[in-house]
Amino acid sequence: MSKFAVMGHGVVGSGTVELFLKNKERINSRQGTDLELGYILDIRDFPGLPYSDRFTKDINDILNDDDVTVVAEVMGGVNPAFDFVKKCLERGKSVCTSNKELVAKKGAELIALAKAHNCNFLFEASTGGAIPLIRPLHKDLAGNEITAVEGILNGTTNYILTQMIEHSTPFEKALSDAQAKGYAEKDPTADVEGHDACRKICIISSLVYGKHVYPDSVHTEGITKITAADAAYAKANGYAVKLIGSVKKLDDGRIFPLVAPRFVPFSNQLAFVNDVFNGVMVYGNGFDEVMFYGKGAGKLPTASAVLGDVIECAETKGTILSATWEDSTDDSFIADYRDQKVRMYIRLIGVTESEASKAFPGAEFLKGAKDGETAFITAEEKESAINDRLEAFDGFVAGKIRVL
Amino acid sequence: MSKFAVMGHGVVGSGTVELFLKNKERINSRQGTDLELGYILDIRDFPGLPYSDRFTKDINDILNDDDVTVVAEVMGGVNPAFDFVKKCLERGKSVCTSNKELVAKKGAELIALAKAHNCNFLFEASTGGAIPLIRPLHKDLAGNEITAVEGILNGTTNYILTQMIEHSTPFEKALSDAQAKGYAEKDPTADVEGHDACRKICIISSLVYGKHVYPDSVHTEGITKITAADAAYAKANGYAVKLIGSVKKLDDGRIFPLVAPRFVPFSNQLAFVNDVFNGVMVYGNGFDEVMFYGKGAGKLPTASAVLGDVIECAETKGTILSATWEDSTDDSFIADYRDQKVRMYIRLIGVTESEASKAFPGAEFLKGAKDGETAFITAEEKESAINDRLEAFDGFVAGKIRVL
Repeated sequence: MSKFAVMGHGVVGSGTVELFLKNKERINSRQGTDLELGYILDIRDFPGLPYSDRFTKDINDILNDDDVTVVAEVMGGVNPAFDFVKKCLERGKSVCTSNKELVAKKGAELIALAKAHNCNFLFEASTGGAIPLIRPLHKDLAGNEITAVEGILNGTTNYILTQMIEHSTPFEKALSDAQAKGYAEKDPTADVEGHDACRKICIISSLVYGKHVYPDSVHTEGITKITAADAAYAKANGYAVKLIGSVKKLDDGRIFPLVAPRFVPFSNQLAFVNDVFNGVMVYGNGFDEVMFYGKGAGKLPTASAVLGDVIECAETKGTILSATWEDSTDDSFIADYRDQKVRMYIRLIGVTESEASKAFPGAEFLKGAKDGETAFITAEEKESAINDRLEAFDGFVAGKIRVL
Repeated sequence: MSKFAVMGHGVVGSGTVELFLKNKERINSRQGTDLELGYILDIRDFPGLPYSDRFTKDINDILNDDDVTVVAEVMGGVNPAFDFVKKCLERGKSVCTSNKELVAKKGAELIALAKAHNCNFLFEASTGGAIPLIRPLHKDLAGNEITAVEGILNGTTNYILTQMIEHSTPFEKALSDAQAKGYAEKDPTADVEGHDACRKICIISSLVYGKHVYPDSVHTEGITKITAADAAYAKANGYAVKLIGSVKKLDDGRIFPLVAPRFVPFSNQLAFVNDVFNGVMVYGNGFDEVMFYGKGAGKLPTASAVLGDVIECAETKGTILSATWEDSTDDSFIADYRDQKVRMYIRLIGVTESEASKAFPGAEFLKGAKDGETAFITAEEKESAINDRLEAFDGFVAGKIRVL
């Protein structure tokens, strides 16, 4: 028998327990495991549950029980999760986490610690919720050079943008709808400003390119400046608007991670990933392109990913995820977004098409322009050059969104 | 150092060698392996290649070299592949295959043999080409009860159907286009009659439900009866037409696998999987739904999946894929399609809407009907009951396609 412990009985923690108990018989028979729920660590009391006897307030109960070989960390936040995870790994207990903040900030250190103690630090649930992503990237696609990853990594903003584009809902109304449905927090900053997507693209970038990418090194823009008018231009011209976390390998060996809203053409599968769903497109030199799609958050979907990791740890001895990434001491391996070539959607007020086309040679003007307004997509050039052209201009820049 | 061998230097075999040599440095540094190409087995000569010195015509060179721990079987067909794979496994050498026929016909036996010899029989490349599917199904989603899988598993037929629906191309013309582009074989039977998709749904069903599903037990219909007229009704009414391999768990514990063309509503992501791409939607009691999308065939895409398996075997000792499925001695665990409830698209000639609506209460009539023709989607009922209603009818049944 192998026991696992769950640290934190919040949304994901209770979901992990619930899903395990529901499917326990199937899991153990199909996977050849003999897995049992040992402990649930929480400072609160949860009387009256069928598994109330498993609760403890003392992490030493978990640390000192040699039958506990795997621990699910689903508390969230860096403290005290980091300290608890370290203690587990130091005792040779594998840890599986849904905590993206922990992985984005402390991943390199915890992976190294797991390796040193012949156990695992797995984090499938930290990125893309239920969607199989970390293991496929590291295992299935291991024979390739990954050239780029582009993903809709945040369900809240995708719900908001879908409402804006499908139903012409203004941003503020779409946000309050999302809050009413429980998709957005009361303080939606981490979602709408792109911080959540940023943590996830940090994890993906670190995994794929082997060096820890810290959130502060990634240029991050949210969706608060997008208007219903921008969404209308997108729709009328064959694009969706999505908040995309992306990373790309450059020819000089550096990488270029970015979190920003994008015009996504309907020729890209990501354009059809709507509502609270996430989708991640991966490009590589053997497989060309693959996409992963599913629920990026929620109680049972996230629990599904946590449990997958727990089961793999329980059935395997020693380390599974050879995927290590090194820590990084500076961010010189990360390229500046201003130096990258891009095509940009621009909406100008008080500027005529002929004025705009002089300043932006090769611009592709969009259908549906209103009086006194010009909307176009620039030819591809350095972002800094596009900004220079815009600064030389008199008109008011009402919208500006990169094209994927 | 760990050596691997490639059995068969055809399209996939040469792709596997090419992709490995191209990415070898990255693979070994990122995955912590020290993998080297040992042998390529083929009865033909391939002089002048940079790796011509690795060829052998004698399988004993592979069997007798203890440094060879992993073998990629990419010959195709059951003979002599089955015999060669058995010999490798009996020597404790893991085998990774792209050979769907071998897995669909001999999977249970080979998995058991691998287990008995503490090595692995992996087959990510056998289903969905480059798309990570087998490992995610077995590992990432292991905490769930998988309730259903529905997939576009054959790129050739998907290309043909996309041409039919997007460009109103008749079937014969779309097929000859596919042949001209190299997407379809000269003898396209295995693709257009659904046999290829059938093998793949057999592999998925066996993996997910734990009992070997043999191709003969799966009701299989191809796409040769679909006309441009059916495709036009689909498009005009919010559907795509796709060849879908599906399997579903029934309440009585049996499973229901099926390969058949389907009307797929635009609300389903699979409707947007076009051309030679494959897409597989998976449903489960924790994660709800996830979809995998990518190239289901081709030289380097298939090689990518083979290499992923080879790398995992090289870096891990002992068995990885606890996923075993038992052999089956009869098919009493497989439900008859005629007993299953379904909604059916039906196109009748010489029948009025009012006649049809009497015979099919609850039918939803489709837009775009031509004179003397009626097209509708039935209410949900047993397929045998729908067939009985049709038989009681005078008119000519010009089209009949299940709705997904």
